[in-house]
This record gives sequence, structure tokens and C-alpha cells, in this order.
Amino acid sequence: MGLKQRMYDALAPEARQSGLSRVNLFILGLVLVSFLFLALETEPALYTQPSWQLVFDISNIAVITIFALEYIARVWSAGADPQYAGLAGRWRYMTQFYSIADLLAFLPELIVMITGANVSLLVLRVLRLARIIKIARFIPAFDALGAAMRRASSLLLTSLALAITIIYVSAVLLYFVEGLAGNEQEAFASIPRAIWWAVATLTTVGYGDVYPVTPLGRFCAGIIALVGVGVVALPAGVFASAFSDELRERELAKIKQELEASRAAAAAGRNDAS
Amino acid sequence: MGLKQRMYDALAPEARQSGLSRVNLFILGLVLVSFLFLALETEPALYTQPSWQLVFDISNIAVITIFALEYIARVWSAGADPQYAGLAGRWRYMTQFYSIADLLAFLPELIVMITGANVSLLVLRVLRLARIIKIARFIPAFDALGAAMRRASSLLLTSLALAITIIYVSAVLLYFVEGLAGNEQEAFASIPRAIWWAVATLTTVGYGDVYPVTPLGRFCAGIIALVGVGVVALPAGVFASAFSDELRERELAKIKQELEASRAAAAAGRNDAS
Amino acid sequence: MGLKQRMYDALAPEARQSGLSRVNLFILGLVLVSFLFLALETEPALYTQPSWQLVFDISNIAVITIFALEYIARVWSAGADPQYAGLAGRWRYMTQFYSIADLLAFLPELIVMITGANVSLLVLRVLRLARIIKIARFIPAFDALGAAMRRASSLLLTSLALAITIIYVSAVLLYFVEGLAGNEQEAFASIPRAIWWAVATLTTVGYGDVYPVTPLGRFCAGIIALVGVGVVALPAGVFASAFSDELRERELAKIKQELEASRAAAAAGRNDAS
Amino acid sequence: MGLKQRMYDALAPEARQSGLSRVNLFILGLVLVSFLFLALETEPALYTQPSWQLVFDISNIAVITIFALEYIARVWSAGADPQYAGLAGRWRYMTQFYSIADLLAFLPELIVMITGANVSLLVLRVLRLARIIKIARFIPAFDALGAAMRRASSLLLTSLALAITIIYVSAVLLYFVEGLAGNEQEAFASIPRAIWWAVATLTTVGYGDVYPVTPLGRFCAGIIALVGVGVVALPAGVFASAFSDELRERELAKIKQELEASRAAAAAGRNDAS
Repeated sequence: MGLKQRMYDALAPEARQSGLSRVNLFILGLVLVSFLFLALETEPALYTQPSWQLVFDISNIAVITIFALEYIARVWSAGADPQYAGLAGRWRYMTQFYSIADLLAFLPELIVMITGANVSLLVLRVLRLARIIKIARFIPAFDALGAAMRRASSLLLTSLALAITIIYVSAVLLYFVEGLAGNEQEAFASIPRAIWWAVATLTTVGYGDVYPVTPLGRFCAGIIALVGVGVVALPAGVFASAFSDELRERELAKIKQELEASRAAAAAGRNDAS
Repeated sequence: MGLKQRMYDALAPEARQSGLSRVNLFILGLVLVSFLFLALETEPALYTQPSWQLVFDISNIAVITIFALEYIARVWSAGADPQYAGLAGRWRYMTQFYSIADLLAFLPELIVMITGANVSLLVLRVLRLARIIKIARFIPAFDALGAAMRRASSLLLTSLALAITIIYVSAVLLYFVEGLAGNEQEAFASIPRAIWWAVATLTTVGYGDVYPVTPLGRFCAGIIALVGVGVVALPAGVFASAFSDELRERELAKIKQELEASRAAAAAGRNDAS
Repeated sequence: MGLKQRMYDALAPEARQSGLSRVNLFILGLVLVSFLFLALETEPALYTQPSWQLVFDISNIAVITIFALEYIARVWSAGADPQYAGLAGRWRYMTQFYSIADLLAFLPELIVMITGANVSLLVLRVLRLARIIKIARFIPAFDALGAAMRRASSLLLTSLALAITIIYVSAVLLYFVEGLAGNEQEAFASIPRAIWWAVATLTTVGYGDVYPVTPLGRFCAGIIALVGVGVVALPAGVFASAFSDELRERELAKIKQELEASRAAAAAGRNDAS
Repeated sequence: MGLKQRMYDALAPEARQSGLSRVNLFILGLVLVSFLFLALETEPALYTQPSWQLVFDISNIAVITIFALEYIARVWSAGADPQYAGLAGRWRYMTQFYSIADLLAFLPELIVMITGANVSLLVLRVLRLARIIKIARFIPAFDALGAAMRRASSLLLTSLALAITIIYVSAVLLYFVEGLAGNEQEAFASIPRAIWWAVATLTTVGYGDVYPVTPLGRFCAGIIALVGVGVVALPAGVFASAFSDELRERELAKIKQELEASRAAAAAGRNDAS
């Protein structure tokens, strides 16, 4: 088995039956670390200190270099798979969704680093979010997320429409009630602002920056909260239940597959023996 | 097939087996847009700008005109249905709940626009909420909402009664405790105000405008929160479960109906062949 | 059928198969109204107005008079039931839990009203809460509340113990972390105060009067919130599920009973006919 | 039966079929009381009063003395179990997890008390938390906690990963949006601070110390709250359901065991009779 094949087995997540290869675990860890640093880099208390600045610079260079090497290795070793062999195959590989994400994970910052171009830090950082797609490939749960949404799409849409309706109607109601009752606050001065109140209330977040102050407004808000909280929680509940079902089924399917594989192996062993 | 029949098929939601006709989708979208504008119109940051004012005026005129034309078309084409044929049938159609909502969706504003009458903007806007009934006709989920409530009515009432009892008792308790413990705040100065605290706490919204400050009050509030949150969440949970069951059953019924229709079609095909 | 028997049928909730008699519905409504007035009476914006004061006085006298008459009627008509017949039977009736609650619902205020004794308003109002027991007799759901608690008592106790443990440990953790990190606020100055924070956070009420401000404190609080919210919601969930099961079973039992009654009636009818 | 055996039966929780011995109930109560005092001791309003100070000192000495005696009794009586007999057996007993916790529950404070060493009060109090392990041994629910986590570990990890992803992405989004929209607040000045907002929002705690103020930020936050709350509640829901299943199964297993025991006893009785 040549280097290319070994590299392919180590890098392609689909080349292994279950779990991640050590190389991919390392890449996964690196992405997580790079997100940790993305967060820390924006903190004034840290980036104003030269020592932390140095840490950020070094970690950035290291991450970009490794991702660049990883990209080259992925493209080269993709040839081990017949469908990506040859130049045309490589091109087909490189134009895939995940390959483009791999490229975006390091190229913009690499170019800026080399050319010293004066590009907004903000844009660079937004592009760095592309690395999240690198994780998505490794964690099947993200895949299950989409499947769960499709599975419950009709229920999800219905309950979401209902939740939005309740939020809108509640907001209009409190806009009228608080406005009529003479609340001169900014909070209920328009329906969009009242919607902000309704979302904060009906999701039970309740920041406390906006709340009714007139007796009638409080009475209406109390009724709305008591009744509406359940309706607005519907989409969340529907999704949670669909996602949990999806994950359970996948786990079951995996166990069944392993069982069949072991049975087939046992049968093959008996055949060999006889 | 005459124009009246074609119009009827395009406009009446019950004339199509499933889904909405393109015309009705457009109407649905228009209602949603009109609600968006209703919200934006109330925002001082927007309505004080002449350009936005122009947008609001034009959109209002457009929406009212379209709803008026739609109403005329609906009433005229209703004659395609034998039960609404003739003048008496049209009258029967026009006095239906949904037809009145269709009329209210544009008539008040049309009259004000034409006569230039000096009517409160607030009243006009409240009347515009009648448009929500236009949506209700198109989205069966709103129908399911009522069915879910009837289905779980006994459980809903019981749990709602319990929730209100817990809220009342908690409010009375904290009114006494905070009052006795010498909290001079406005917040717990009367039971109705304490009820506002109890609703905000037991729905877990927790704005933070009212909270106990004495040690004994906090102790009682902690116990109440720990125990009461579950009780007050009961009606929401009961409703969510009934609504989800209702939607699932409807989906199932629809699938069954389609299956039977396709079976009947297949049987008819075999009969034709034999 | 004498007056005593007719009165007994009208007053005793257990004398009717299902539902409440008109008299009891009236009593139930009166209790609810008296609770509404109890709340309104404490509101300074109302009790300082002479007209409202008059309303409160009249309603109080009316309620007390009716409850007194009801009590006399109940005690007298109880004799229609053989087990409460005679003087000794009446005494047995009067020393029952519900009868004592009936007495407490009007006697203290009646005595104060007649004697003009100078008794604290607070004490009188607390005693008025005894009227809640009058409702409890009419609404079987309150009975189901106790049954649901017994049914899930072991699960409830375990999950409550767990919730309290999480709250305590979270409070201790944040007391140490915020204290060490130099938070000079009052909020985390002692463990009991930190417990107030932990309850507000883990029940997701989140008033916002207390929250960690140091980075380490926020980090710990974030982890605690993410993990602990589910644990503290356990007792509420367990209770909700037990209560809902209990209500469902009772409804089923009632339907079964009615079915059997109608079957027995039908069988009796056939017997008569043959 | 000697004193050692009787002591062993009274002290070892596993020596009794079900429930706790009176001695262990007393120890359990003492641990709970010591945690109550740990909380009260930190309250400035109490520890500054000499009378409370005296109470704390006496209770501390009492608790430490009893725990020391309990430890000696446990180690000595452990010899009644053949596997801990002899000096080597005792050593094996003393190096167990629970025995070390028993030692830590009193030794540090005892040493400080005797030597008068100048040790930080904070360290001593943290060590006192070891007493929680003393409870864990007596309450099987804590055991069920671990079992429930193992049982749902795969689902828990997946949903936790998802929750953390949503929190991170929401934080990054609001950091950019509020930053771009010109919010000069401290609140969204860096991603770690935005994460604090995201945790408070998506767990629906919503302290209200941080919230978006720009229209775009509020729009994004509203969408995030509506969608994200369900995802972040997933791990809590998964855990709650696994824990409740675990407790139910254990209760069932206990009942089955008791049933079999009573059957075996009955069978033995019949055998004796025949």
C-alpha cells in the first residue's frame, strides 16, 4: 500500500468504518482551538497585551500552515479514490463543497499574510467561520440536524408560523394597550419595539429592558405569558423530539449494521471451515 | 369552463385538494406584507422620514385596492358554487364569517381614504388586524389549534385553574411576607402587584423589575419557584402535546386519504382494463 | 321529599353524580369573587378612594352573610344523611375538616364586624385564605394534585434532592469563585445570597438582580446554567407527567363508570321487558 | 453477635437490605446540618454577631468530634467483613474512596483546631465540601445520576456539542452585528463577552445585564432566541429523560427482587411443611 493510499485512509473520513483517524482528530482539535483563539483575539483585555498578541500571531501562523499542508495532502491523496484520479478527478474533488471550505479555511489569511494587504480584520474573521464546515464533516450529528429538520418539516413550519403569529399579535396588543394607557416609555413606542418585548417574554428570556408598566398592560401581558409561552415553545419541542428520534434511529441502524457485519464474518468463517 | 368557474377554482381555498392556488398564495403574501408594514408604520424612526411615509402611503393604497378587487372577484365567482348562486346566494356568501373579514380588511380604510374623514389612526389599525382571519382560512394549522383545544379542554381547564391558583397563593404569600418583613418597595405593596411578580416568576420570564429583597421573602420565593414553575408550565405542556397529536393525526389522515384515492384510481384502471 | 333532603341534595357535592349543583356553583363563584376583592382591597390606588372603600365594605358584608347562611343550611341539612342525623351526628359533621373551613370562612370577620374588636387587618385577611378549602371540595383536580404527588413521591423526592444539591453546590462554587476573583458586590458576599442567585438562575427565572461579573465567575455560571437547568427542571417535569397521568386515568375511570351505569340501565330495561 | 458485628450492621450502608440504619440517618442529617451551617457561617449579618459566632463554634466542634468518632468506629467495625479483617484489611478499607472522604470530612479542621495553625478559612471550607461524598453513599439517586449519564452518553455528547455550537455561532453573529451597527456598549465588545450573552439568552435565564440594543442586533437575537432555545434545551431534556428512565427501572428492579425474595420464602415454607 503506497503513501497515497495510506494518506487517503488517514484523511478521508468516509474511508474508515467508524470513529475518526488520528490525523482527523488532530484537525478537529485544531479547528476547535482556532475557534477558541478567534474568540480570545477579540477581547480587548487580551489583545492589548504584547505577550498575548504574540501568542495569537504564532497560533495563527501555525494553524494556517497546517491547514494549507492538510489541503495539499487531501487533494493529492484523493487520487487513491478512482473517482478523483487524474487531473480532471482532482478538479472534481477540489470543486466539492467540503474542499472549498477547506480552502477558505486558510487561503484568505495566507494571502493577506504574504502580501501584507490591508484587509479589514472583520472580513478575515468572518471568513474564518468557514472552518465550522470542517467540523461538520467529522461530526455526524450535524448531518442528523438536517435530517431531523426534514423529518419534522411540516410540523416545524406549522408550529413556527403559530409562534410568530402569537408573537406578532401579542406585540400589537401591548402596543395598543400600553400606548392607550399612557405609557410614555420608549419601549412600546412602536410595534417593532413591542415585538422585541414579545420575543423576550414568550421565549421566557425576559431581559427586563422592556416590560409593561400600566395595570392594563400588565394584566394583558400576564395572560399572554401564561398562554403564549407554551405555543412559542412548540417549535423547540417539536425539533427536540425529532432530533432525538433521528439520533436514536441512527444509533440503532449503526448497531444493526455492526451485527450484520459480524454475522456475515461468522458465516464466512463457517464456510471456510466446511 | 367559464371565467367564473376558473376564478372560483383559483380563489376558493376549498376548491383545491391540497396546497394553495397561485392567487391565494399571492393574497397570503400580501397579508403578511401588510402586517409587516403595519408594524413599520408605527416606528417613529421611520414614519418621520418623508421617503418612508411615501412608501407606507403607496403600499397602503396598493393593498387596499387589491383586497377590494379580490373581494369583488370572490363575491362574483362564488356563484360558480350552486349554494351561492343567484342574488340570495351571494348574500348568504357575503354574510359568512370569512367574507365579513374580507370586507373589513379594506372597507374602513377605503372609506376614510375617499371621504378624507378624520378618524383615529389607532382605530383603523386595530381594524386592520381583521386581515389575520384572511390568513387563518389558508393555513389549516389555525384550524388544528381550535381542535387541539377542544380535544384537551378538560385537562387544559384543570391545569389552568391550578396554575392560576398557584400564582394567586404565591402572590398572597409574598405580599404578606415582604410586607411583614418591612419591604417598603412599591413592588409588593398590594396583592395585584404581587400577582405581577408571581406571573413573571412562575412563567420563568423574570423581568427583574420586581423581586423579593428580604431574606424571608427570598426564601419563600425560592421554594415557590422550585415547586411552582412545573405547575404553571402544565397548561403549556398539555396544550403543546394536544396540538402536536392533532397535527400528526391530520397528517396521517391526509396520507391515508391520498392512499385510498390512488387505490381507487388503480382499481378503476383495472376495471377499465378488464 | 322534604326541604331538608332537597337542601342536602343541593348543597352536598357528593350527593350528585357529576358536576355541581346550581347552589354550589354560586358558592364557588362567590369564593372566587371574594378572592378577587381580597386582592383589590390591598391596592393603595383603590382603597384610598371612598367609592371603592364602599364597594369593599358592601361586598364583604354580603359575602360573610351568605357564607354564614350557607353554613347554617349545610349543618341543618346534613341531617338528611343518616350518618349525620341527630345532635351527635351534627357535631360529627361540624368537626369535619371541610366544615371547619366553612366556619373559618366567615366567623372571624363576623365577630370583628359585630364586636368592632380592634384586630389586625392582616390576620383577618390571612384567615380569609381558608376559603380556598371551600373551592378544593368542588374541584376534583385539587384532589388529583395530592394523588399525583403520592403516585410519583419517590421520583419526586429523589429529583428534588438532586435539584437542591445542584443549587447548593452551584451557590458554593460561585461564592468561592466570585469571592476569590475579587468581586466586591453584595451579591455573592455569602453562601445564602449565592443560593438566591442559584435558584434564580437554575429555574431560569433570572431576575437580573444578581449575576457574576468576573470572567471566571461567568465561565462557571455558564457551565452551571447549561448543565444544571435540566436537573432543576426534573421535579417539575416528573410532577407534570404524574399529574397529567392521574387526570387522564380519572377521566377514563369516569367514562368507564358512566358506560357501566348505562349498560346496567339497559340490562334492567331488558329484564323489565322480558 | 459481638459489638463489632452489630456496629458493622449499623454503620455499613450495604449491610442492610433497604433503607438506612438509624445511625446512618443521624450521620446523613448531621452532614445536611453541617452544610446549612457552612452556608450561614459565611453570612456577614450573622458571623458578626457574637451569639451566632458561638453557635457556629460549638456546632463545628460537635460535628468534627462526631465525624471523628464515626470514622474510628467505621474502621474498627470494618473487620466484621472478612475482606477487611486484620491490619492489611483495615488498610485496604481506609484507602477506599469513601473512607478517604470520611477522613477529609473532619481531619483538616481537627488538625487546625488542635494546632491552632493559621490556615485560610476558605481552604478549610472548600475541604468541608468533601462531606457531600458522605451523602452520596447513602442516597442511591446519586448513583443513578452517573448511570443515567452513561446510558445516554452518546446522545448527551451530541446534543451538548450542538448546544455549544449554537451558543458560539450566536455569540460570533451578535458580536459582528452589534459591533458593525455601532453599539459602543461593553457588552458585545468581544466574543467571550458575547458568549456570556448567548448562554444567558439561550438557556432563557436572561439576567438583563447584556442585551442587543441596535435594531439589527435585536432582529438577529430574536431569531436566535426563537430557534436556539430548543437546541440548547436538548441536553437538559435528554438527561432528564435518561435519569427518569433509570430511576423507574431501579424501582422496578427493587420491586421484582422483593417479589422473588417473598416467593423464595414462601417456597421454603412449603418445603419445610412437606
